[in-house]
Amino acid sequence: MDTTSGPAKEPSLGVLGGMGPLAGAALAMRIVELTEAARDQEHISVILVNDPHVPDRSTACTAGGETPLPAMLHGIDILVRAGVDCVVVPCNTAHLWFDQLQAACPRPILHIVDAVIHDLQRHGIRDGTVGILGTPATLRLGLYQDRLRAAGYQPIIPDPAEAQALLVPSIAAVKSNHVDEAYPLAARAIELLRQRGAGSIVLGCTELPLAVPHARRPGLGIVLTDSIDALALQAIEWVGRRTEACGA
Amino acid sequence: MDTTSGPAKEPSLGVLGGMGPLAGAALAMRIVELTEAARDQEHISVILVNDPHVPDRSTACTAGGETPLPAMLHGIDILVRAGVDCVVVPCNTAHLWFDQLQAACPRPILHIVDAVIHDLQRHGIRDGTVGILGTPATLRLGLYQDRLRAAGYQPIIPDPAEAQALLVPSIAAVKSNHVDEAYPLAARAIELLRQRGAGSIVLGCTELPLAVPHARRPGLGIVLTDSIDALALQAIEWVGRRTEACGA
Repeated sequence: MDTTSGPAKEPSLGVLGGMGPLAGAALAMRIVELTEAARDQEHISVILVNDPHVPDRSTACTAGGETPLPAMLHGIDILVRAGVDCVVVPCNTAHLWFDQLQAACPRPILHIVDAVIHDLQRHGIRDGTVGILGTPATLRLGLYQDRLRAAGYQPIIPDPAEAQALLVPSIAAVKSNHVDEAYPLAARAIELLRQRGAGSIVLGCTELPLAVPHARRPGLGIVLTDSIDALALQAIEWVGRRTEACGA
Repeated sequence: MDTTSGPAKEPSLGVLGGMGPLAGAALAMRIVELTEAARDQEHISVILVNDPHVPDRSTACTAGGETPLPAMLHGIDILVRAGVDCVVVPCNTAHLWFDQLQAACPRPILHIVDAVIHDLQRHGIRDGTVGILGTPATLRLGLYQDRLRAAGYQPIIPDPAEAQALLVPSIAAVKSNHVDEAYPLAARAIELLRQRGAGSIVLGCTELPLAVPHARRPGLGIVLTDSIDALALQAIEWVGRRTEACGA
């Protein structure tokens, strides 16, 4: 039986999750919550591979740990064979392997940094200083900086000691289901970048939107763009354009 | 390439979701939140097929609508080919087709009613009157009643007019992302069963735990068992037993 044919004819999204697993599931949830739909059948078809055994992306980048690439390619293979039309990867650090993933994937992968830039524009922010929070690997290897500069922004990042002291434990707290402990650390990192001139902040690790829940954001006094919601909205828009182009 | 072999060797769970899509994503989220884990790699591997285009289960049962069975079997086929060891279906009404799904699936499917009974026992409730809330199809076709009686409980259900007036619009509100409108309707249905002697209530439609969020439950003054959380816990326990049996 060919699993690429089946009852579902609508465009289908593949989510390569598990990195971490709460972020993968949260993205699947936000795709539903952010879709305008009056009944089940108007929602978007999603397949989520939420495999948390993918080797740690940060350790691979910064400490010579096992590469996550084969496990990620295995997940992509499951998604493609299941018939998805487009792939999203709710893990910022994983995007350090974006070119290798896209080269091996016959479907488009939507880049999380493009989604975040689109979300900044959605908030009316078209230039100025943007603070980036993320894993030390993401920050050090410049995942966001070049694309933000090319789009007309001035990126700033925490210094390495702050990233170790605030962001690493905040992200680890989310991964171990201690979301409440994650908040004050992330909030402090946001405040430090605000004091240095950031007019908006990118939550550029998919654990950070879980550390800083929507209800607490208005109290922080700065525009936050959330890499989970930004990716969900980018995916929903992709499906909308595809559906329109196919005359569905 | 054989997608059933791959880097992940740990037991893997398949979730046949989309019915509705918020319930499917919520189950994936609750599996993560209810797992004891200190880092990503200690979480459970999950593949979620969240296809909301499966024909409506209730309409098929009560109004001669298109059968959802082929679409559900297509989803099971995707999960099995992706290498899952066990399947859960976060939709109570879909369990009216349980025997056909299990007959076509070479992996065990955990029955949602067994999960709920196990959860009642986890709450220390081993007998007495249990109120069931669900879709009219679930209630009328007795999905819960026989299994609850066999386990030593006395099931009671809303009358058909109450189910139409309270449960149908509450469930529809969740499916259209109007979760706040769903709560008062579900709370009224709970209160009516409490007045008729129910000592506990089964939220026996996977939209209802979303209609009655955890934070509002203590105010209702009755033990609620939640078919999403019950299924998540059953799945986590299954993986734990399987991991132990394999000496992992």
